[in-house]
Parts: sequence; C-alpha cells; structure tokens
Amino acid sequence: MTPFTWTLDGTDGNARAGTFTTPHGALNTPVFAPVGTQATVKALTPAQVEELGAQMVLANTYHLFLRPGDELVAEMGGLHRFMQWNRPILTDSGGYQVFSLTRTRKIDEDGVTFKSHIDGSLKRLSPEISMRIQENLGADIIMAFDECAVPTDYDYSRLAMRRTHAWARRCLEAKRRDDQALFGIVQGGVFTDLRAESAREISALGFPGYAIGGLSVGESKTEMYRTITEVNSILPADKPRYLMGVGTPEDLIEGVRRGVDIFDCVLPTRLARHNSAMTMRGRLNLMNAGFARDERPIDPDCGCYTCRHFSRAYLRHLVNAKEMLAATLLSIHNLHTLVQLSRDMRSAILAENFEQFAREKLAQLNTKETEK
Amino acid sequence: MTPFTWTLDGTDGNARAGTFTTPHGALNTPVFAPVGTQATVKALTPAQVEELGAQMVLANTYHLFLRPGDELVAEMGGLHRFMQWNRPILTDSGGYQVFSLTRTRKIDEDGVTFKSHIDGSLKRLSPEISMRIQENLGADIIMAFDECAVPTDYDYSRLAMRRTHAWARRCLEAKRRDDQALFGIVQGGVFTDLRAESAREISALGFPGYAIGGLSVGESKTEMYRTITEVNSILPADKPRYLMGVGTPEDLIEGVRRGVDIFDCVLPTRLARHNSAMTMRGRLNLMNAGFARDERPIDPDCGCYTCRHFSRAYLRHLVNAKEMLAATLLSIHNLHTLVQLSRDMRSAILAENFEQFAREKLAQLNTKETEK
Repeated sequence: MTPFTWTLDGTDGNARAGTFTTPHGALNTPVFAPVGTQATVKALTPAQVEELGAQMVLANTYHLFLRPGDELVAEMGGLHRFMQWNRPILTDSGGYQVFSLTRTRKIDEDGVTFKSHIDGSLKRLSPEISMRIQENLGADIIMAFDECAVPTDYDYSRLAMRRTHAWARRCLEAKRRDDQALFGIVQGGVFTDLRAESAREISALGFPGYAIGGLSVGESKTEMYRTITEVNSILPADKPRYLMGVGTPEDLIEGVRRGVDIFDCVLPTRLARHNSAMTMRGRLNLMNAGFARDERPIDPDCGCYTCRHFSRAYLRHLVNAKEMLAATLLSIHNLHTLVQLSRDMRSAILAENFEQFAREKLAQLNTKETEK
Repeated sequence: MTPFTWTLDGTDGNARAGTFTTPHGALNTPVFAPVGTQATVKALTPAQVEELGAQMVLANTYHLFLRPGDELVAEMGGLHRFMQWNRPILTDSGGYQVFSLTRTRKIDEDGVTFKSHIDGSLKRLSPEISMRIQENLGADIIMAFDECAVPTDYDYSRLAMRRTHAWARRCLEAKRRDDQALFGIVQGGVFTDLRAESAREISALGFPGYAIGGLSVGESKTEMYRTITEVNSILPADKPRYLMGVGTPEDLIEGVRRGVDIFDCVLPTRLARHNSAMTMRGRLNLMNAGFARDERPIDPDCGCYTCRHFSRAYLRHLVNAKEMLAATLLSIHNLHTLVQLSRDMRSAILAENFEQFAREKLAQLNTKETEK
C-alpha cells in the first residue's frame, strides 16, 4: 500500500480542500509551506515553526547538495532527523536554483554543469543526480528535475519545456524509494499553448502530484493567474497541485480560487529579515518612526506569538537596534499570516462560501492601513 | 511592607542558598541572570529565555537611555511590559558602559558627560539622572551609579572609589519608587585596602543588596578571587551579594564558594554568536570540521532544548552556512549551562556538600574534551 493518498474533503467552485497523506503525517490543504533553504527556516527553531502551525517545510536540494552535502545528511539519518522536523518535508529538484543562482552553467540534454555559488567548484545536476540527492535527503515529497526558462521567451520556453518533459521521464525511471512521492512539474512560460502541451504531457506520465513551475518570476499577475487557470483545467482533478514559489496573500487566494492546493515561498521570511510585516491589510515597515510609540500589535486580529505579546513600538525598537529577535518575531508573524489564511480558506471551502471569503479578503488587502 | 526580603535557606561554608523576593517573583540563589542589553536577550524570545530556566534578566541603562529612550519605555508601560519578561529584571546604572563604550567623556564630581556611541550626540549621566532613567525603566533591582576605574591603577582606583561612595549616597537620596531595590556597588580595583574601605563605606549606607563591581575587567583570577573573599568578609551576611559581569562556570563556582549569590554576564550569549559552546567540560568551537559528522549533542549530560534535539553535525552545518539559528541554539545551550550550574550549586548547598561538588566540577572543567 502506498503511503500517499489524496482525498478531496470538499470543493467550492474550483477551490479544493483536500488531505494528502505522507509517511510523516497528513497535509490538510490548502497548505502553505515555509522555506527552510539550508535545512532551517531562517531565524526560527523547529519548535517555533511547529507552534505557528506550519504543516510542512520545504528545503532546497541545490543548497544542501553543496553544503553540507546530501551524503552527510543521509549519514546523519536524513533531513527530518538532521533538522529535527518531524512533519512532512518537500525538497525541490535543484533546477530552479541552478538557473537562478549560478553564473557559469552549461546545459546539455543530459543535465547541467555549473559553478557552485559557494566556492566556485564545478558541479553537475541531472535528473538522475537530482533523484539520488533527494533520496539521500529523504523528504516526503520530491520534485522532478526541470529547466526553468525566462518565461517571456517563446523559443527558449519551448526548448526548456521539452527538456523538462524528457527529464521528468528520466526522474520517474531513476526514482527508487517508495516512501517518497515524486511530483511532476509543468513548465512553458506564459504561453498558453506551451502550458497546455506541458500539462498534458506531464499528466500523461502519471505522477502522484503535480506542480506548476516557472511562475512568479517576473511575469504579470494577469499572465500568472491565466496560466494557473489554463494548467489546472488540464491537470487531473484527483491529484494534489502545487504552485511553486508563490507566497503573497493575494496570490494564495487567487491560486486556491483556481484549484491550487500547495504553496511555498521565501517571501514571508525574507520580508521579515527586511523589517516588513505581512498582514491581511497590507504590509507594515517596522523601521517606520511612526511606530515608535505604537502600543498595538502588528495585527490586532492575529493570534501569533508575536501579536499576542509584542507592540509595534517594541518591534520598531528591535529593528532600529538591529537585534536578531526582530527577524525571529517578524518571521513568526509573517508565516503565521499565510498559514492562518490557508486554514481560513480551507474552512471557507468546507463551508462552501469560498467566493465570498475570497472577495472580502482581496478587498481588505487593497484597503491598506495608512502607515503613520 | 517592603516587597524585598532576603532569606537564607541554607549555607555551606561561605556558600549560601537564599531567596530574594521582588514584585515580579522570587529569586532562588545562587542565580545567573542572562543579559538583555537592548531589552532583548540576543537571538532569543522571552519564551525561550523562560524555558531554559532563567529567573531574571539584566538590561543596560546606558543602551536603553540612548535607544529607544527611557521615557519611551515608561510610556509603553515599563521594561517588563515592553520586552514581555514577567519575571524579575535588574538594570545596571550605566556607569560601566560610559567608561567602557564611549571615547570622549568628561568626568566631574557631579557626573559624566559623554558622546553617544550611536550618533555622537552629547549626553549626561549622574547619580540623579541614572536613578530617574532606572525608575522609568522600572526594573525590580536597580544599581547605584558608580565609576569603574582601571583596576590596577591605585590612585585612580581610590579617586573613582571615593566618587562612587559619594554617588551612592546621592542615589539613595534621589531614589523614589519603593517597588525597586537599589543595590550599592563596592569598587576599589584589585587593592585590598581600597576594597575593604569601599565595602565598609557602602555597607554603612544600608542598601537592600550589595554588588561587587569592577572585576573581570583584566585583572588576574587570583586577584579577582582574593578581592571577592575580602569584600564578602565585610559585606553584611543578611543581604544578597551580586558579582557584576562574571560568567564562566569556574568563576560562578569560585564566586559562590566565597559567598556570592547573584551573577550576570554577556559571555554565554556572546560566545554563542561566535560559534562557541560552553560546557562543564570546557568549550567546543562548532566551526570545527571535526564535528561535521558528529551525531552527539553538544553535551550528552545537558537537558536544554538544543541538546535534547540537535547534533553537533547540524550545529556545525548552521555555523558553516551562517544561519541565525546557530546563535539561537548555542545561546539556549550556553545560558542553560550556567542556569543549571546555579541550580546544582543551590542543591549542593542545601545538601551541605558544596565543597565536594565544587571540587568535582572544577576538576571536570580542567579535563577538557579533546576537540576532534
């Protein structure tokens, strides 16, 4: 019996509430996964990540391959044990980082040779190598090795998409562990015909879950939402759908509205390290001197540890004094915002009032609090 | 009735186990207080500081006076509320920082004028101003404004000591809040006659607690321990004694052995930010490549969150990858080491086997684990 099952607990329009079981517990969707690039969600202990309600974290194959090395992680008992996260983990394939973080790289049909951004040494990734690394890391959900092209270049998007399809087949063949679910990735830039072709080809391969890659990388919101709609109209309804690297409240709502189940993004923790708080009424920059004597929490409606305890005045002081605790408290809040939004969307779907919920939240997000 | 009472729960030789009550709860001594210079113990939430067992934190008057300003903290409800620490807080007087952090300063009989290390603006501290600031901050234990001289210069030590005595009288007169205990500070460098004079003079003023200042600032261990012995032979037995800025395991043991009750130090959190773990068997530098595949916790005998969960291999990875979580996990461990040592010393005193305990621990500290 496979440890991976997908159950639809409810739908409302195209929005879905589902349950995906993994060897480390079930995901209740819609779900947002915090990113722990180097086997840590930056500035947070796993206890804090668990307390804020995260169901799953993502870790980056590219980074862990280079440092500390996937074989070391395997020797230490795998990623769950190494980073002490006992709920589901998802690893990406390394593809995106090779194309976004490295300067010198050479792509051939077999894979990619590149220079490590850490020490400049020559490294190689291919579908087979990515599978081997992800098996060493031992995440519950692993991703096919793909090529993420500049989304607005048609010819390159087509070339990269077709390579992605060939690589997806090789990943399926190379995969050995049956306690890991391998998700296929749809590419094709912002081009409707390519996305449709990719969604059909990748679906035909029969993965236990599907991802939409190559979005939120510079294209317009209109193009992004249109692409999600197009791809999800083709992907099988009986498998989970993961929109990679997307993480604003607006995009989560628009994604769920179009049938997305799983999200991840560095945005909440990155914003936190840049003194910015995400709320369902827009962003607050805690550097702002107007908060110096503001006794209110970041968001009076938020139930996170940060908002239950600390004033904007205190957070502004921490930011101003360059204290590490600022990044920790803002990361807790920002991640909680997306985790709570995901939970609220699930409730709205199960109550069959998702559209009303979505409209209200999107309207609220557009009436930003005036920053003093 | 005063909220401050000191009870001796037990003694063993010169070592004491006591209870000091404050408006925010009782301190069971010996006690080590983590330092939260800018109203945060660096890299830790107050929940984490509480969980590791800290009974009290120290905050720095000098830093908070300059940023965010003591009046702002008072407006926000005082330091306990501002930083969300509901157990006892101790603030120092600002004296030590004025003499150690500022370059341009002018001392007169009335106080000190100095340039802020943050923006270069001209500021002034005096006994009266320090009392006003500490009353705005609202700590449970506040300190008399003192002058900390270079400990090996006799003439300057005598001058600074006499000024410290005059300032101590002015602090007693300037103090207004009766929910704060003002401790007097003994100075006098490493000179036995000056320390004896200072201990007598300061004791005669009748404070609810006494501190030994100006140690661990460059003098030898022999001089430091001799000075503690000398001062504590004069300080009244029926009041708590606080050794300022001292925080190695050896010094805590040697201090308690000589009748000290309260300690604070930046060392454990500073070492943590420099990748170093304090243990009762010496220090480990987690940068060390020998830990790359070491599955053991920092200290197999330690019960802290870090040691209950994480391997040296993981911590070494975090340090190597410059992840903030390294500082957090090492701070938890290092502070827990001193908090646990303090608890163990209290138990040993109450069981009347402190000398044996002290000898064993000091021997253990000298047989350092070989760093691989």
